[in-house]
Amino acid sequence: MKQFINTKENMVTEAIDGTIAASGGKLARLDGYPHIRVVVRADWDKSKVALVSGGGSGHEPAHAGFVGAGMLTAAVCGDVFASPSVDAVLAGILAVTGPAGCLLIVKNYTGDRLNFGLAAERARAFGHKVSMVIVDDDVALPDLPQARGLAGTLFVHKIAGAMAENGDDLEACTIAAERVIKASRSIGMSLDTCTVPGSVKEDRIPHGMAELGLGIHGEAGVEQVASNGAKDAIAKAIEKLASTMPSTPHVALINNLGGSSVLEMSILAHELLASPVGDRIKFVVGPAAMMTALDMHGFSVSVMELAEGDAALLGQQVACPGWPGCKPIHPIQVRPLPDGLSPIRAPASAHAPTKAFLTGCCKVLIASEDDLNALDAKSGDGDTGSTLAGAARALIDAMDTLPLADHTQLYRAIGLELSQTMGGSSGVLLAIFFAAAGDASSSGLPMREALQIGLDRMRQIGGANPGDRTMVDALMPALDALPLGLDHSAAAARAGANFTSTLTVAKAGRSAYINPDQLIGHVDPGAEAVARLFEHLAS
Amino acid sequence: MKQFINTKENMVTEAIDGTIAASGGKLARLDGYPHIRVVVRADWDKSKVALVSGGGSGHEPAHAGFVGAGMLTAAVCGDVFASPSVDAVLAGILAVTGPAGCLLIVKNYTGDRLNFGLAAERARAFGHKVSMVIVDDDVALPDLPQARGLAGTLFVHKIAGAMAENGDDLEACTIAAERVIKASRSIGMSLDTCTVPGSVKEDRIPHGMAELGLGIHGEAGVEQVASNGAKDAIAKAIEKLASTMPSTPHVALINNLGGSSVLEMSILAHELLASPVGDRIKFVVGPAAMMTALDMHGFSVSVMELAEGDAALLGQQVACPGWPGCKPIHPIQVRPLPDGLSPIRAPASAHAPTKAFLTGCCKVLIASEDDLNALDAKSGDGDTGSTLAGAARALIDAMDTLPLADHTQLYRAIGLELSQTMGGSSGVLLAIFFAAAGDASSSGLPMREALQIGLDRMRQIGGANPGDRTMVDALMPALDALPLGLDHSAAAARAGANFTSTLTVAKAGRSAYINPDQLIGHVDPGAEAVARLFEHLAS
Repeated sequence: MKQFINTKENMVTEAIDGTIAASGGKLARLDGYPHIRVVVRADWDKSKVALVSGGGSGHEPAHAGFVGAGMLTAAVCGDVFASPSVDAVLAGILAVTGPAGCLLIVKNYTGDRLNFGLAAERARAFGHKVSMVIVDDDVALPDLPQARGLAGTLFVHKIAGAMAENGDDLEACTIAAERVIKASRSIGMSLDTCTVPGSVKEDRIPHGMAELGLGIHGEAGVEQVASNGAKDAIAKAIEKLASTMPSTPHVALINNLGGSSVLEMSILAHELLASPVGDRIKFVVGPAAMMTALDMHGFSVSVMELAEGDAALLGQQVACPGWPGCKPIHPIQVRPLPDGLSPIRAPASAHAPTKAFLTGCCKVLIASEDDLNALDAKSGDGDTGSTLAGAARALIDAMDTLPLADHTQLYRAIGLELSQTMGGSSGVLLAIFFAAAGDASSSGLPMREALQIGLDRMRQIGGANPGDRTMVDALMPALDALPLGLDHSAAAARAGANFTSTLTVAKAGRSAYINPDQLIGHVDPGAEAVARLFEHLAS
Repeated sequence: MKQFINTKENMVTEAIDGTIAASGGKLARLDGYPHIRVVVRADWDKSKVALVSGGGSGHEPAHAGFVGAGMLTAAVCGDVFASPSVDAVLAGILAVTGPAGCLLIVKNYTGDRLNFGLAAERARAFGHKVSMVIVDDDVALPDLPQARGLAGTLFVHKIAGAMAENGDDLEACTIAAERVIKASRSIGMSLDTCTVPGSVKEDRIPHGMAELGLGIHGEAGVEQVASNGAKDAIAKAIEKLASTMPSTPHVALINNLGGSSVLEMSILAHELLASPVGDRIKFVVGPAAMMTALDMHGFSVSVMELAEGDAALLGQQVACPGWPGCKPIHPIQVRPLPDGLSPIRAPASAHAPTKAFLTGCCKVLIASEDDLNALDAKSGDGDTGSTLAGAARALIDAMDTLPLADHTQLYRAIGLELSQTMGGSSGVLLAIFFAAAGDASSSGLPMREALQIGLDRMRQIGGANPGDRTMVDALMPALDALPLGLDHSAAAARAGANFTSTLTVAKAGRSAYINPDQLIGHVDPGAEAVARLFEHLAS
């Protein structure tokens, strides 16, 4: 099965139960499964105007995700892409409507109009005050007599919902809903069709093309256009919207039709705000998946001209999971880069013994180039010797720029040098080793302890434990033995290096990806380098 | 182009700018484009411990979407699936770190460890207090020495972030972060690979299979398993997690890897809570796209054993768009269906003149069956006559059960009868007509006005205007002329019906989909039926 559903029959009730379970107790449902699927506010006391919406499923989080204080009171959920029955809508209305009455918010599809319409009549026969508005925000075809209801519906939910929550009466909510519908426009675009459970996915949109002006039920868009990325997609969508947008403040709602990545949606948001209508957009809702067509790889943009008070109603806090908030657009704040990105370089200073010590170590590594490469060829790409020798040559070249007389600063300077010349993971790890040692040294620790701290830090970052077949297997025993003298230290390093040739499992570093049988009998090249350095120092 | 991006080079900066622009002024960025991409809290004053995280991009909303009071202070964004540079991380640390220090939260990938690790050393060289934790919550392979960092990272962001916001010091935040890491486990599953911009999509997972134990960079999962829907997917994921979950309270985080529909994610949430570990899950985060792998059609489940105080920290309010909140799990509240779903049936009553009147009307429709079918064949599927005649026959059969002596109730009863026997849009519309007329009649309006209100309601729901080639073209003039007498009314209905034969554009009802040339010269069958009824009544 190419979807995370169980059966076509149960998918809507299971999804609703998942939504309710994850709502923190804020949602409830009516006891009408399988045919009557109505999600209601758990805290509803019928003291205010009720808002009921719904329609086919497959548009999640619409509509159950918008049930909560400040938006819908109930959502009536049909099968995927099919209107709920009259009985289901009636159950929703009767369950939540009190003396203040009920506003039905219906997307302009024949089935929804008829079923919500008849349910409204039945509810009126019980004496309930029920009004109904029909949302037709689609601008795909400018002269379409029956424009579809798309994500602009959410403006209606939000503004009428905030008013109802604030205690406005049914007439005021209905008038506002009608006004919002008139002020709202939407257009959708998609790169692919959607996967309707139980149906074969239609392969309708050729590679390199997109559909513009589509609905939310997988039906074909009004035209196929070339697909040339995010800027072009927004330009084509805006072309349909711009002429309907007076140069007054608007709110834009950026909706993921279900299958676009969050990365793409953010790029589309960027392009919309940078587009020719961007300066008219003063508030934005999303980008987020709000009114989806299952997994459709597309988006829709809805715009609404703002009237006085709308911004406050759109911004009012709500308690429903689907609403991502409505945010004012501010220019992007760009802060200066902090000082200190260029590493601190201590002033050069001369110190002959230190220069000789360092140069000697470097020469050991240079002389070991071929041997270490040969060892590395057993477990890696055979360049450990060249990497270390290259770094050693660079250090010799840089010797007279180093703070040789200030050992604390010298650690850090060597770390910096290695991070810039050595490259790769080992360069960064040795840079961390020396930087941490320098840090410890600057706080007054003696050399051995400073080096120990460098090793600890390198191990934390590199993740290598003793026995993992890395340079740690030589360096750790060498530092442990240092209080006993360099001879002991060198012997410990050598023993540790030799020990790596017995290890068949490599758990860190590159050799982790090598067949264990290939490793046996070969010393790890990093451990060998450490052993040779300590043997040089002891000699 | 099969994605809403512009160029591979600019996609990360454009996405970040979109995120910041849609943040309502809560986010800012450093002036380091194109290489240094750091998103910071716009309101940050360095008075508390700073939390810095990040890594490769392509995981949106991670990490920029989690920057805000109560979670991250800064997010450092690399290229898609590539670690940010040491300089970028250092810029992030230096930009937000004050005397309280900085906690780095790093997912366990070599590049991130090294680059964040070295940046930490550099920042320490400036005297900053910096600690670093490495998240390794993946349980794909139980003995993996270097488990990956997955969506469990968000538990660390949230708990350490809440503590930092509450004024806890760096040590306390670091200890808590380490504890949360030890308590967190994640497993991922996907039905398809992801689309990496600029790369050909790998077709790795055969139809009917899924990958279990995958990372968030498109790398292969540790095993391919049969895919048998949502319950099975959760069972397989739980198999990996259950043994690591003591029977104490846990929080679960249900993460969309990017390409799963909201419907599927809700079903997965339902299955997780209904699974054998469901009773251990006391809080849930999501389902939502939080740590994605671009557009991967998959999910991950992260669980964390709750320690004292964790629930409060997880539930603490945050100001960042990516966090969907952490909700307590309550049993699903199921409310009884409201009374009144069975329509109110007024008691039958006899009234000979009304019975004769109604029966006569029905007989007109029955006699017209063939004519109306023939007219409908020009513009529809040729069944209008049979539909109306069938309803008329059913009404005659039901005559003795109707409240014939109570005209107000009779309207409603006819409406109910039609909605149950007639079917289709026209049945619902006529039901609405009679129900609304009955409603109006019950509030004391005379017959003509009640019928007018029925017509208005039917037009609102059906969307038909005069000239749209529907029964409205005959019914509206007939009702308008009623005060002048039935003769005038019948003449007006006939004129209206005949007028429909001149209409080439149908804007409502089924004929809207017919070629206009096919319509000319033919009367609309619904309008013809109305004309015949009024002609009968006038005769």
